[in-house]
Amino acid sequence: MAIDLSQPPEVQRLAECTRAFIRDRVIPLDDADDGDITAAGGDALRADLQREAREAGVFAPHAPVEYGGHGLGMSDRAPIFEEAGYSLFGPTALNIAAPDEGNVHMLAHIADPEQKEQFLAPLARGDVRSAFAMTEPAPGAGSDPSALTTRAVRAEGGWRINGHKWFITGADGAGFFIIMARTSGEPGDRGGATMFLAPADTPGVRVGRHIDTLDRSMLGGHCEVFFEDLLVPDSAVLGAVDRGFEYAQVRLGPARMTHVMRWLGAARRGHDVAVSRVAERRGFGSRLGDLGMIQQMIADNEIDIAATRALLTRACWELDRGEPAANATSIAKTYAAEAIFRIIDRSMQMCGGLGVSADLPLARLSREVRPFRIYDGPSEVHRWAIAKRAVSAAKRAQQGAE
Amino acid sequence: MAIDLSQPPEVQRLAECTRAFIRDRVIPLDDADDGDITAAGGDALRADLQREAREAGVFAPHAPVEYGGHGLGMSDRAPIFEEAGYSLFGPTALNIAAPDEGNVHMLAHIADPEQKEQFLAPLARGDVRSAFAMTEPAPGAGSDPSALTTRAVRAEGGWRINGHKWFITGADGAGFFIIMARTSGEPGDRGGATMFLAPADTPGVRVGRHIDTLDRSMLGGHCEVFFEDLLVPDSAVLGAVDRGFEYAQVRLGPARMTHVMRWLGAARRGHDVAVSRVAERRGFGSRLGDLGMIQQMIADNEIDIAATRALLTRACWELDRGEPAANATSIAKTYAAEAIFRIIDRSMQMCGGLGVSADLPLARLSREVRPFRIYDGPSEVHRWAIAKRAVSAAKRAQQGAE
Amino acid sequence: MAIDLSQPPEVQRLAECTRAFIRDRVIPLDDADDGDITAAGGDALRADLQREAREAGVFAPHAPVEYGGHGLGMSDRAPIFEEAGYSLFGPTALNIAAPDEGNVHMLAHIADPEQKEQFLAPLARGDVRSAFAMTEPAPGAGSDPSALTTRAVRAEGGWRINGHKWFITGADGAGFFIIMARTSGEPGDRGGATMFLAPADTPGVRVGRHIDTLDRSMLGGHCEVFFEDLLVPDSAVLGAVDRGFEYAQVRLGPARMTHVMRWLGAARRGHDVAVSRVAERRGFGSRLGDLGMIQQMIADNEIDIAATRALLTRACWELDRGEPAANATSIAKTYAAEAIFRIIDRSMQMCGGLGVSADLPLARLSREVRPFRIYDGPSEVHRWAIAKRAVSAAKRAQQGAE
Amino acid sequence: MAIDLSQPPEVQRLAECTRAFIRDRVIPLDDADDGDITAAGGDALRADLQREAREAGVFAPHAPVEYGGHGLGMSDRAPIFEEAGYSLFGPTALNIAAPDEGNVHMLAHIADPEQKEQFLAPLARGDVRSAFAMTEPAPGAGSDPSALTTRAVRAEGGWRINGHKWFITGADGAGFFIIMARTSGEPGDRGGATMFLAPADTPGVRVGRHIDTLDRSMLGGHCEVFFEDLLVPDSAVLGAVDRGFEYAQVRLGPARMTHVMRWLGAARRGHDVAVSRVAERRGFGSRLGDLGMIQQMIADNEIDIAATRALLTRACWELDRGEPAANATSIAKTYAAEAIFRIIDRSMQMCGGLGVSADLPLARLSREVRPFRIYDGPSEVHRWAIAKRAVSAAKRAQQGAE
Repeated sequence: MAIDLSQPPEVQRLAECTRAFIRDRVIPLDDADDGDITAAGGDALRADLQREAREAGVFAPHAPVEYGGHGLGMSDRAPIFEEAGYSLFGPTALNIAAPDEGNVHMLAHIADPEQKEQFLAPLARGDVRSAFAMTEPAPGAGSDPSALTTRAVRAEGGWRINGHKWFITGADGAGFFIIMARTSGEPGDRGGATMFLAPADTPGVRVGRHIDTLDRSMLGGHCEVFFEDLLVPDSAVLGAVDRGFEYAQVRLGPARMTHVMRWLGAARRGHDVAVSRVAERRGFGSRLGDLGMIQQMIADNEIDIAATRALLTRACWELDRGEPAANATSIAKTYAAEAIFRIIDRSMQMCGGLGVSADLPLARLSREVRPFRIYDGPSEVHRWAIAKRAVSAAKRAQQGAE
Repeated sequence: MAIDLSQPPEVQRLAECTRAFIRDRVIPLDDADDGDITAAGGDALRADLQREAREAGVFAPHAPVEYGGHGLGMSDRAPIFEEAGYSLFGPTALNIAAPDEGNVHMLAHIADPEQKEQFLAPLARGDVRSAFAMTEPAPGAGSDPSALTTRAVRAEGGWRINGHKWFITGADGAGFFIIMARTSGEPGDRGGATMFLAPADTPGVRVGRHIDTLDRSMLGGHCEVFFEDLLVPDSAVLGAVDRGFEYAQVRLGPARMTHVMRWLGAARRGHDVAVSRVAERRGFGSRLGDLGMIQQMIADNEIDIAATRALLTRACWELDRGEPAANATSIAKTYAAEAIFRIIDRSMQMCGGLGVSADLPLARLSREVRPFRIYDGPSEVHRWAIAKRAVSAAKRAQQGAE
Repeated sequence: MAIDLSQPPEVQRLAECTRAFIRDRVIPLDDADDGDITAAGGDALRADLQREAREAGVFAPHAPVEYGGHGLGMSDRAPIFEEAGYSLFGPTALNIAAPDEGNVHMLAHIADPEQKEQFLAPLARGDVRSAFAMTEPAPGAGSDPSALTTRAVRAEGGWRINGHKWFITGADGAGFFIIMARTSGEPGDRGGATMFLAPADTPGVRVGRHIDTLDRSMLGGHCEVFFEDLLVPDSAVLGAVDRGFEYAQVRLGPARMTHVMRWLGAARRGHDVAVSRVAERRGFGSRLGDLGMIQQMIADNEIDIAATRALLTRACWELDRGEPAANATSIAKTYAAEAIFRIIDRSMQMCGGLGVSADLPLARLSREVRPFRIYDGPSEVHRWAIAKRAVSAAKRAQQGAE
Repeated sequence: MAIDLSQPPEVQRLAECTRAFIRDRVIPLDDADDGDITAAGGDALRADLQREAREAGVFAPHAPVEYGGHGLGMSDRAPIFEEAGYSLFGPTALNIAAPDEGNVHMLAHIADPEQKEQFLAPLARGDVRSAFAMTEPAPGAGSDPSALTTRAVRAEGGWRINGHKWFITGADGAGFFIIMARTSGEPGDRGGATMFLAPADTPGVRVGRHIDTLDRSMLGGHCEVFFEDLLVPDSAVLGAVDRGFEYAQVRLGPARMTHVMRWLGAARRGHDVAVSRVAERRGFGSRLGDLGMIQQMIADNEIDIAATRALLTRACWELDRGEPAANATSIAKTYAAEAIFRIIDRSMQMCGGLGVSADLPLARLSREVRPFRIYDGPSEVHRWAIAKRAVSAAKRAQQGAE
């Protein structure tokens, strides 16, 4: 009854199928368009890939079985999502890209039966995409969510929402929005938020410009979104009024970890490309892969991959036990975001001039992974939270000792 | 049947007992003599502490049950050894200090019944100490074991051994030596070594000077040892002739990990001392522990502790399954040795001038942990081995693809 | 007669004029097209900007006075080039972008009077652009120049050149090429190269595809170039036959340093953007610029900027004295390329989501500066050269002592 | 009239003499006692070494000529102090060890003629040692000097001083103390301090225990010092009342830089020892110094040495011009303290087990240099100051632009 790290056989099988599917069907498309999912076909590509994934039996590993998914928990998702992340288009193909994957997770936990039928079911099937509208331009909710300024006020038979959001991933083309709005208190208060569900074609929902960011692989972009006297009925409230920050945690802990899984796959691809190259190229009278400085980069990549996976394993186990795992997910996310960036960066360096060109996938991977040190909570905010817990625990221990 | 990281209840109980024992009985002695085990009493101290540990029920967690130990596997040892390592004298108290602990492990796997009776039993009971004589001065066996120059040649009824070893931990006062000697081939060959057992009072065994190193917590020092026409009988051969390098791996993988466990405990103590201090001290108009640069050091320590533990968990699980785990132990050892050094270094920095003084345990911990980046294989050698495996795998994949 | 770091007054004045010109005339264009010089107008934009720079009195600070430049040495160029580099289009505006700037430098040192008239004069005036054709695809000349495979063989009245080059900056639209070709020996030999001058419209010169790299600010791209039975007269030989590697050093040392100057300007802009932002934005109950983790990033940027500038000062002084300065330029280039990358990376991080978007210039700066750790010699090759010199010196000292 | 980095010939000659003197007369003693200056002879050794230094013409390079020194400015001191620092006993031999060297500097600037005669003259000649009593235990003056709690109150004909100091370098055996005490305001105020001069045998001066720190090379230790109703006359005031913090800056800027000079010498020695060793030792089928990971450590050491020296050059030039150079000295000190630590750490790592032993000077150098990241202002405090200046400048620029 000791520690057991073995993957269940059915998970291993699904991981192998996913690996083959990604390698054979998805990577070629990703490479052809340098990871730009819009250039590669956008929602039409998405429909094709998801159909193929369904046929290959690898679609929706995370979604509840009653909605056509495999119903895997966090620990079991890890190897599958990592395989999917090996291609930048892989998560879209399996319907596990952000933000849909996190939204499926949250709706499965919080939505009522009618909401599940209306929003979760088509989302899990891939019939629609979705967006999670939380982040706001300064001085609103950014790294510090309590600064939330979007307001929902009581209106006849429901709520009237006004606010300005940005960096809303997937907004352009989303079928519906999950909207975080303040229903009580003032910006700066650590409570008073509520989540609302609204179909994208509701009057008062306006999607603005795409913010042009380093990454190109997320369908629907990172957009500005405006809610202008948006009226939603009471049935649009997700969960209970004023508990939005709590629910956000339900979403954010697992969502951080699934991000790590996917980006770890991307990092592994970068590493594989580089190692494969230095294993055959020669220079300075030696195989490149036998030169000490190259070996150091390879070993550091291997260490970073192993540590990311090990921290992820820990956090997923805690989440699967029903713990909030706030510390474990902050630690895993912070380490992973920085490690994944280093892995890709070293992989580029190993490949020289070609490494920074589109002839290899490394330059695009470097663009894609950089924002992860900021998205889902900048490293600095996670470190702040980790340190606060440590100092508080030390303080309590001192007071206990007195 | 998914991944399970829970510790068995009896392991948790033993860890708690160990923590209390270390805190109440061992730390005060460690602090009183600034971690210098010889100054604190040497072998007499050891006898006292081991008696107390036996009474507290925490003695020899690793030793086979038939020799009075708890018989724990690698995964179960981890939390216990970490608690023991919280004090520099803790491993000696529990009889799990290097090199005895690794020697118990190896003898339990390889020795024949007579050898077990003569060498393993008293070692497991703490009646004697032991030494593992492998490392040699240049140009002999150092980071590169194949350079082994100590020779054992056939003599009547046994073997005659000549050679010069150094950095032999625990040699001064050891009851017996495990000697690595070349029985075939030449220095540089990757085979041809044999292990021999020899009581310390055998003529031809001479312990020279203590090499004065940064660390002070290992009983018996790091000594030069000379084998001068040392005659041993055939029964002194441990395992089979010419298989010494193989057996060394049996010892080295687990020994690396138990080193990590112990030093992780030391790192955690350093971190606890620092966090406790910044949780109450003030400066620059703030509690020190609320200043961002201090928070960053605290968080980085927490991340390093978590990653070390997670990599250790992985390697121990592989070892417990009977795998050689060469890559997993190299990765965990390399990461851990560097992380543990960083943790202590940051802890010193957080405590300012006091941090580099003997008023706190941090300065001595910094001296103690630095050599671990060199002992048990320098980081560079592990990285070289990790990279070689990765490049070879890539090469094989290419050849398979052709 | 002690050390003097003051800039001559006329250099200070030119630096101030350059700063104002860049801020008022160039930055707005750079920002409008996110640093993509082709999108912003390509060679037409270049002609406009250079005319304006001439009118502002800041054109061609490096070119010999007889060719219309300011004739500044390396030390005096440093502050001017840094100001120019503050905008990605600045170096083009002043006619000091790579590779033209380095080619002017080299032609001024090596070309004969006719070559100067034909090639240097129009280049210094900005009438034409140029390219330096050295780098080749594997297994040719890359990080290791001795692998040179392009061949020039004796033909009637001149030479016939055949070879395949790539990553030839500015090739598309260049008026002429400086071609590095092997005239004796075999690939791997550390000699036997010759430089040739050839107008771009000479039959046998073919510019292939643009290699799509992370950077977008260099006019004429990084192209593949093919020399197919290219016939050049004897007068096309730059300097003497078989001394090409030597001349390359004449070009490369200073060219590395002017790269550092320009990219240091870019790094300073990134830093300024970030500091300006955190000086006014608030979060977590504080001005962002007063949070410790932000302060740490700001201070590390300041340190990196100061160290880069200080190492540059040293290397330029050596070059101005006529020394080859191989070690000083390797050290300055290696430190600078890594420091500049870190500066931009921290600046992005300080700005959060906006930092990785095109709303600020940071994301594009991060793309632009990354290749500098590879271009002009990867950090690993410079470190190898630095270490070789140190070890050789130690060896000589030992032999001297014997 | 451009930048000139050449050392004046007389400085070069003095540097060469110093190098020879240190190598021939000082290093052997340093090595014999593992850098422990008390064990090596303490003040008697000091007298011997200083006599020899005087005979060799290298004594007191910094002291005013009228007091028997060479009267060198900061820029000219740099190469001499670096040579002296090559041995841990070198600064004592030349009478330029901390705190005497900084005290000579400050007294030469601030003391009145009588004070110069009584205190500066014997100090410059090496007849006595001195101490600078500023640092206090928490919650007093530590990293944050404004927390100063030691009080001087008006008494008949002078002042009565009470306070508790610690980490007072050189206190045991000092001939006199420079005491920082609060003459107005409260702890936390950024003013109100005054400096007093007091012979060590004045009643009310009590030197307590030596604080046992990692370093061993500073004569007189780091002590606790108590001022108990210490009465000093008005003539004991150094400079003007209430201007102590100002004067401290006069001392601290240059004192930081001379620390850097000395420790840079120590770092260079560590690097030389390691490079010399890997230049002759072999392993893994190669000369160690030709292995890539070793080359990387060598090159990083060379870069760190060059950058430290270059930043020092800048700061010294500013100081020699009479500027406060607060930012330049903070930058140089912070970079240097961290770089010097890295250099020694890599040097140890290159030498393997021997690197952490007393057989080489590296382990002791590692102990000696670690505190420099804390002494003279921890890196965090310097970074905080550097960032505050940058943010303030940005804020001013914004307000100017409005």
